[in-house]
Amino acid sequence: MNDLANLRGFVADELNDAQVAILEGAARRARAHAVVMTSVAASGHPAGALSSMDLFVTVLASADFTPELFGGTHDRDHIVVSHGHTSAGWYAALGLFNFLDVEEALAHFRQAGSPYQGHVERGVPGVDWGTGNLGQGLSAGVGFAIASRALGHDRHTYVLMGDGEQVKGQIAEARRVAHKRELGNITAVVDWNNIQISGTCQEIMPADLRALWEADGFKVYECDGHDYNALYKTLKEARNDGVPSVVLAKTVMGKGVSFMENKCDFHGKAAVGGEIAQALGELGEPESLYAEAKNRRFEALPQEVLFLEEKVELDLGQPITYEADARKDNRGAFGAALADVAGKNKDVAGRTPILAFDCDLAGSVKLDAFARVAPERFIQAGIQEHNVATLVGAASVAGVVPVWADFGVFGIDEAYNQQRLNDTNRANAKLVLTHVGLDVGEDGMTHQCIDYVSLLRNCFGWKLVVPADPNQTDLATRWLLTEPGNICLAMGRSVLPIVTKDDGTPFFGKGYTFKYGGIDVIRKGADVNILAMGHMVSRALAAREILRREKIDAQVLHCACPLAMNVDELLWLMRKRPLVTCEDHHVDTGMGAIVAMNFGRKGKSVPMVNMGVTRYGDSGSAEDVLFRMKLAPEDIARSAKELVATGGGLAR
Amino acid sequence: MNDLANLRGFVADELNDAQVAILEGAARRARAHAVVMTSVAASGHPAGALSSMDLFVTVLASADFTPELFGGTHDRDHIVVSHGHTSAGWYAALGLFNFLDVEEALAHFRQAGSPYQGHVERGVPGVDWGTGNLGQGLSAGVGFAIASRALGHDRHTYVLMGDGEQVKGQIAEARRVAHKRELGNITAVVDWNNIQISGTCQEIMPADLRALWEADGFKVYECDGHDYNALYKTLKEARNDGVPSVVLAKTVMGKGVSFMENKCDFHGKAAVGGEIAQALGELGEPESLYAEAKNRRFEALPQEVLFLEEKVELDLGQPITYEADARKDNRGAFGAALADVAGKNKDVAGRTPILAFDCDLAGSVKLDAFARVAPERFIQAGIQEHNVATLVGAASVAGVVPVWADFGVFGIDEAYNQQRLNDTNRANAKLVLTHVGLDVGEDGMTHQCIDYVSLLRNCFGWKLVVPADPNQTDLATRWLLTEPGNICLAMGRSVLPIVTKDDGTPFFGKGYTFKYGGIDVIRKGADVNILAMGHMVSRALAAREILRREKIDAQVLHCACPLAMNVDELLWLMRKRPLVTCEDHHVDTGMGAIVAMNFGRKGKSVPMVNMGVTRYGDSGSAEDVLFRMKLAPEDIARSAKELVATGGGLAR
Repeated sequence: MNDLANLRGFVADELNDAQVAILEGAARRARAHAVVMTSVAASGHPAGALSSMDLFVTVLASADFTPELFGGTHDRDHIVVSHGHTSAGWYAALGLFNFLDVEEALAHFRQAGSPYQGHVERGVPGVDWGTGNLGQGLSAGVGFAIASRALGHDRHTYVLMGDGEQVKGQIAEARRVAHKRELGNITAVVDWNNIQISGTCQEIMPADLRALWEADGFKVYECDGHDYNALYKTLKEARNDGVPSVVLAKTVMGKGVSFMENKCDFHGKAAVGGEIAQALGELGEPESLYAEAKNRRFEALPQEVLFLEEKVELDLGQPITYEADARKDNRGAFGAALADVAGKNKDVAGRTPILAFDCDLAGSVKLDAFARVAPERFIQAGIQEHNVATLVGAASVAGVVPVWADFGVFGIDEAYNQQRLNDTNRANAKLVLTHVGLDVGEDGMTHQCIDYVSLLRNCFGWKLVVPADPNQTDLATRWLLTEPGNICLAMGRSVLPIVTKDDGTPFFGKGYTFKYGGIDVIRKGADVNILAMGHMVSRALAAREILRREKIDAQVLHCACPLAMNVDELLWLMRKRPLVTCEDHHVDTGMGAIVAMNFGRKGKSVPMVNMGVTRYGDSGSAEDVLFRMKLAPEDIARSAKELVATGGGLAR
Repeated sequence: MNDLANLRGFVADELNDAQVAILEGAARRARAHAVVMTSVAASGHPAGALSSMDLFVTVLASADFTPELFGGTHDRDHIVVSHGHTSAGWYAALGLFNFLDVEEALAHFRQAGSPYQGHVERGVPGVDWGTGNLGQGLSAGVGFAIASRALGHDRHTYVLMGDGEQVKGQIAEARRVAHKRELGNITAVVDWNNIQISGTCQEIMPADLRALWEADGFKVYECDGHDYNALYKTLKEARNDGVPSVVLAKTVMGKGVSFMENKCDFHGKAAVGGEIAQALGELGEPESLYAEAKNRRFEALPQEVLFLEEKVELDLGQPITYEADARKDNRGAFGAALADVAGKNKDVAGRTPILAFDCDLAGSVKLDAFARVAPERFIQAGIQEHNVATLVGAASVAGVVPVWADFGVFGIDEAYNQQRLNDTNRANAKLVLTHVGLDVGEDGMTHQCIDYVSLLRNCFGWKLVVPADPNQTDLATRWLLTEPGNICLAMGRSVLPIVTKDDGTPFFGKGYTFKYGGIDVIRKGADVNILAMGHMVSRALAAREILRREKIDAQVLHCACPLAMNVDELLWLMRKRPLVTCEDHHVDTGMGAIVAMNFGRKGKSVPMVNMGVTRYGDSGSAEDVLFRMKLAPEDIARSAKELVATGGGLAR
């Protein structure tokens, strides 16, 4: 495809006839490949793949996006395919542009164990962001565009989208951020064939696409999505117009295969039998393509490409230690640590940019200090949590460290699916939840995030840290900035006592290094164990004092990393004494449930009480709400005492 | 307020001077009450309450919405307060219109144990829908408007909204449904004071409100939100214009209290000290109001009002029994049962309307049969899941039975927070997930819903049924239509063998009644127990056959209701033999984890293996994907055999 060289980066003003012919040929072949892929797999979405193919090919020929660039640098264009069900088409197009061996994709598309999953997934070269759940691609694109600008590259991002997904609200949220931040480096391209699964777009859910994009400040172009030159010139204009723009590309569903054109049927159905030969015939490809791919299907599966580990360069500075008499909340300690690291690094060459994202809660989630230190890296994204979750995930695989701080119910309950998809995308999102559990102020049950452990536990990659006090919060904040992977730091709202050692000095002070996993022995004790999570440590320590007066010597343990719970370590620390777990999380789905499950699996008969949230909480101060939930120090002490009294002190 | 009688139902053309004076007085008092409530609670959102007060009062004086109507009938207007943080204002206004005893609210707002939570919650008379997480109120309103129309009342719904939340994508989704269904019976009223927590709306996230509402087909009115006559006349026009409409009401943040006006500060901060007296003075109310409320604060708490139980009248017909040789998928059985019941009842007077909601997947989720039987009750809502989740919840407390069928990842992963809020609202949503677990076709990991048990487990009210075969699906479908509460029916995509008894007749056939909770003993056996969930029963039965050949007699149990697991019943059924649990759900958060947790809590040492999903799944046929996840019958048999061989057969 050397004859296309002057298109790369949209240098040429237009395509010459030879170039049009090359693209036509490429698209024709790729269409045939998409048909074969879906027919070999006997599933998939051929008609959408055919519809989008000319968009795919034109963007791939023209963007600063090559196999060499893809594997090696963030200083390149990015492409997101938001309508991930067109995967057969995208893989076929990537094959023609040498990102991957199309023979592999032809044979192993949608085959269990192959990286060529049913929807576009990372791990396939040329895929910047895995999609499949509709309406999220533009957010990912905005994340890439923001990251590229923060890195000083300011490269372009293309987001190829379906028309059916245009009604998803998250798309409007993404548009608004692009508009507000004047992202001239993003172009959306909508495959506007007007056919959805059950009918036309107007039948399914009417939407005035031009009006919607314009209302959110995008420049709108329309063109024929099967006319290469029109498409190229429109894309070039959109690339250079200096504002966020969208190309509404009028297309034909199933383009190129007569019996698929303008039909709903082949949205999610592959050609079979004679249809395959007819389709290949119409596309000018040999019938044998199908049989060859089909016969190759049971060879060794292709391997997934390794994910690039993002290299983060940051000076994490020195921890701030809050002394025993400090009055500090965890969120304040987070905000101070983040601002400290941001300030240290922001003007140093070679350092990875830290971006902070806010949904109009900066003062509460303590991003205000960051906003003062690095205002140009503070992104006020409004009350648009679904969008923010995805753009943080995408930005995190594009060379920056994005930190999103929000209330628990917004950052994880509201955006759960987006966080799950950040996990399947193996992103490096940093999520700080400043209001979790029952410690959220007087806002009441809608704002009490009592499920964050449970939600993240469903994801195979997410790490979670629930610090006990401001000192541990400071350490965990610095740690997560350079640690790979999706990481959540979760805390309550209240000012907390500094956790101290026996000698009165800060427990998480000098000599303590934060390490993911592991259990902190806050106080040793011989009679009973109290395992607390997060701010409940201070209540466990208060319970310990109550128990002391009753001559019961309680050991206080802290679990900051419930998803990394090592029950063998716990059992060893417990020294065959009974266990009370306490947390302001749903009692059946949090840390205590993890312990109980593991005891059950190990067949360990341990005298234990799990204390936690057993109903939707009241609206009131954290003290009052915890009291009414029977999670006050007196309640913890009572549980421990009863366990000891009922013979629970004996190992079984 | 008898002098306002001719406003009720917007009968009068305009307010007379006396009426204006009455509303002015009422709003002034209610503002004072809102200030006192927040100051007594020392938290809350006074400035927004003051901003919205004239909207609250005007709507309450004019809508067909009185304490008598509220408690007794669905044949009335509905009101949703979407910006639930203005609760102090809404409670104060409701107090003036005799919905509640405002003295109670003054004293006990945001006090732990009181129904006057920090955000507007159901359980307080006059609250149709609990809110607090922004951007969801319009969806609830659309749900009410749809339900009212389906009941033949066609009463009006008012949705009072904030301006900051206007950028939430879900609002656009709700607008589009209102427009598509030509809901002339809904009016949104936006409190447009242009102040958010951290700055003006334009600073936080620019949005062209008029353009956005118009782009989605709403008629847009603008008026002064503090001019009662202008507001009344505009609302009257909007009520009668026959199309969905919005009133953008220009207001002043903190209106009526000079030091709160146009300030961000008092968004989430109560007046203190001398501020309180000053505010009350400016509002013409005695200073003593505050002290009186404060002194009452620690008296007995008011009780929550009981929720009306929705009466559902439906003839559930006769179950369809699929014989042993039937080739049927669970989703098909669901679709047939739903269409059967819908057909039986739709033209019978006095029967509760069933509405079915679809997100452009009717053919896959098998709502097509319903759409043919009751096309006027089939609601195609497009790819807008967040919105649909909320509107189904709201419709379910307004006199209809709404059923939403969707893929698992869309119905519960994507809309988790909405489903959680349906739970806090004690709604009666019926959610049918037709593609859960690994049995979702070849779509791959983004579409594999391996967390639905875990997600619903975080909610205290949701019930979950995972049927084993088409017969149990039919029974559960009929059952859930009249059963109160939020209920989820979850199933995979594949055609399944009919589960039979020893004699070859359908297990879930004649003589079997579906009851929520309980464990089905599918096959008795002496050596080892296999507890399966949903379609894994058929694989457990296949494993049993493999084991038989090795002279191991396995008992096969089925858990259709994992959230209602009775571990004592399980232990009794197990007869001290070991246990293999199997499910295509995340192994640490599903049915097996529930069993293990309960064993751990009980200190039961049971030889057990939990089999489930241990990583993100492959893309391929359900058989292939299960095979690679080591959940095939051979794997189950191997686990059982190893348990038996390692002495697991002995009770411990």
